[in-house]
Amino acid sequence: VLDKKIVVLPGDGIGPEVCQEAVKVLQAVAEKFNHTFTFRYELMGACAIDATGTPLPAETLEACEWADAVLLGAIGDPKYDKDPSAKVRPEQGLLGLRKALGLYANLRPVVAYEQLLEYSPLKPERIAGTDILIYRELTGGTYFGEKGRDENSAYDTCTYTREEVERIAHQAFKAAASRHGILTLVDKANVLETSRLWREVVQEVSQLYKDVQVDYLFVDNAAMQLILNPRQFDVILTENMFGDILSDEASVIGGSIGLLPSASIGDGVGVFEPIHGSFPQGKGKGIANPIAAILSAAMLLDYLELPTEAACVREGVQKAINSNILTQELNKESPYTTEQIGNFIAYTV
Amino acid sequence: VLDKKIVVLPGDGIGPEVCQEAVKVLQAVAEKFNHTFTFRYELMGACAIDATGTPLPAETLEACEWADAVLLGAIGDPKYDKDPSAKVRPEQGLLGLRKALGLYANLRPVVAYEQLLEYSPLKPERIAGTDILIYRELTGGTYFGEKGRDENSAYDTCTYTREEVERIAHQAFKAAASRHGILTLVDKANVLETSRLWREVVQEVSQLYKDVQVDYLFVDNAAMQLILNPRQFDVILTENMFGDILSDEASVIGGSIGLLPSASIGDGVGVFEPIHGSFPQGKGKGIANPIAAILSAAMLLDYLELPTEAACVREGVQKAINSNILTQELNKESPYTTEQIGNFIAYTV
Ligand SMILES: CC(C)[C@H](C(=O)O)[C@@H](O)C(=O)O
Ligand SMILES: CC(C)[C@H](C(=O)O)[C@@H](O)C(=O)O
Repeated sequence: VLDKKIVVLPGDGIGPEVCQEAVKVLQAVAEKFNHTFTFRYELMGACAIDATGTPLPAETLEACEWADAVLLGAIGDPKYDKDPSAKVRPEQGLLGLRKALGLYANLRPVVAYEQLLEYSPLKPERIAGTDILIYRELTGGTYFGEKGRDENSAYDTCTYTREEVERIAHQAFKAAASRHGILTLVDKANVLETSRLWREVVQEVSQLYKDVQVDYLFVDNAAMQLILNPRQFDVILTENMFGDILSDEASVIGGSIGLLPSASIGDGVGVFEPIHGSFPQGKGKGIANPIAAILSAAMLLDYLELPTEAACVREGVQKAINSNILTQELNKESPYTTEQIGNFIAYTV
Repeated sequence: VLDKKIVVLPGDGIGPEVCQEAVKVLQAVAEKFNHTFTFRYELMGACAIDATGTPLPAETLEACEWADAVLLGAIGDPKYDKDPSAKVRPEQGLLGLRKALGLYANLRPVVAYEQLLEYSPLKPERIAGTDILIYRELTGGTYFGEKGRDENSAYDTCTYTREEVERIAHQAFKAAASRHGILTLVDKANVLETSRLWREVVQEVSQLYKDVQVDYLFVDNAAMQLILNPRQFDVILTENMFGDILSDEASVIGGSIGLLPSASIGDGVGVFEPIHGSFPQGKGKGIANPIAAILSAAMLLDYLELPTEAACVREGVQKAINSNILTQELNKESPYTTEQIGNFIAYTV
């Protein structure tokens, strides 16, 4: 019996809808296993700008620091995309949260579900059995480096320290050791100094994980290999920007980005969010796939050291998939709504 | 009747084999159209390091400056990949050449051939009709920015000037205007200052090309869209690193990287090369697909303002494809050798 505090940041677009279903499932878990989960809702992203003028209000950050785990929906609104030079933007909330909570490791599992292979843009025989876990560094690199502009030029700096690479490398090696024992470092070490540092540190750290096979792949080649033969990968480790690009690329493999959860782990509290973004065109229509958010909740349960509970949620998701209880992008004939899918999974828990 | 000087840099791995076939085809073109092409061979890459200690000997550079066009095979050798921190590496030859010749625009056409759809990892109905031209900036960005290392950290700087963006933007807009009239700028303007500069400049330049529709896509989304729906793209314009990653990713669409040529254009002489790299495992086996090199030769002919001759080469390639005169990756049953394919295309010219 556990008492856990969960902060929910529904965010923008379809964020609130999918969070609602994930919370429903977490509540079902709490009931079944006799835990108490206390949910507290806070603002982040465009909704926070609209309400408070800032994408990451101090109160939100305080709530996160108080929480045992954070569930995040999605952030972003088209009205801000038109002008990416605007001073205040929803993304700053997300980047600020990552930095403030020290969320240096972003975990993105990519799985091809047997039942859904036909929905992939890739041929089924290429992707069947795909099971990748991407470790994306999340608080370093070009995103957070010094940057600037003058009238005629602009610059962004990518920096990494040995320690920044080491801490996520240890996590990725541990994950690889508990999975299929293969870690692929993706970099551009033939050109970039930061990549050479990554390679050096990963080579050092690898000495402590003798059972893990380490492969090195240049990022351009990795972008091909992910499509040509995704099954070759077990754990992929890479820096922030490469991880952003490759994990989104990999998200196409399974046929719907609406299936893919993520966990952001670091010094403090962990944040769990679907990778699909705010999908504003889908808002309020009941067509948003809640499975990514629900699987994010499962990762949250793992993080709270509740593996049985997490497995229970994943079984519920698998049952929904087996029974074709899916949103329109995966079930054209008789699509279920966001809410119906959440209800089903909560019920099976 | 024309007299043209062509420098050939066969390079490493399968580079010499595929160059040989491309030269054969160029010679057939010269004969048919009564031109004189003078070929001069020079060293670059690992072979240049082995022979002279440097990947880009001064003599090679002088030859390129003297030439009307440069045909390049591929560079790179596994003995250098093991240690990407080595002081002298083959890639430096390529990067040095790009910089020395001011090759700021790298053009990579990606086409899905109707006859070869089955070889793609993607489903045929997703890719049929794909016809993309990628404009990758080639002499700026992180590749050439200030970089450095100390014991505990490393950094790379991405810089762009207004002028660097403008000159390639004009080229890309002109290309789009002569094609399907759509230009997609790929950037990460929600995070990076350099991306915001790109967006600003492209918006300005677009005023001069009112017939071209401009789309803006974040690089992570672009990495998905290329696989989900490649037909949506006409011309893609992007900075150096994003172009490296996305053009290699896009290369999987057509079923074989052995089909894809490139042109690098700038202030001085143009350089034409297959994108496939040195493929050292394939060296000397007659299994390297020469079509990418031969199509690079066609781009070279266009550059020399010989469009009829270029079209003639492309027709020859199309005939080879129609007749299944292809290497093993595209013709498992009765594969042709590198040389047989070169002979066939030279013969049909
Ligand atoms: C919104 C954006 C800043 C963010 C990123 O690039 O990190 C998003 O694309 C993601 O991957 O979580
Ligand atoms: C060899 C390497 C430096 C080069 C690059 O990244 O530019 C290659 O990958 C390419 O795309 O031509």
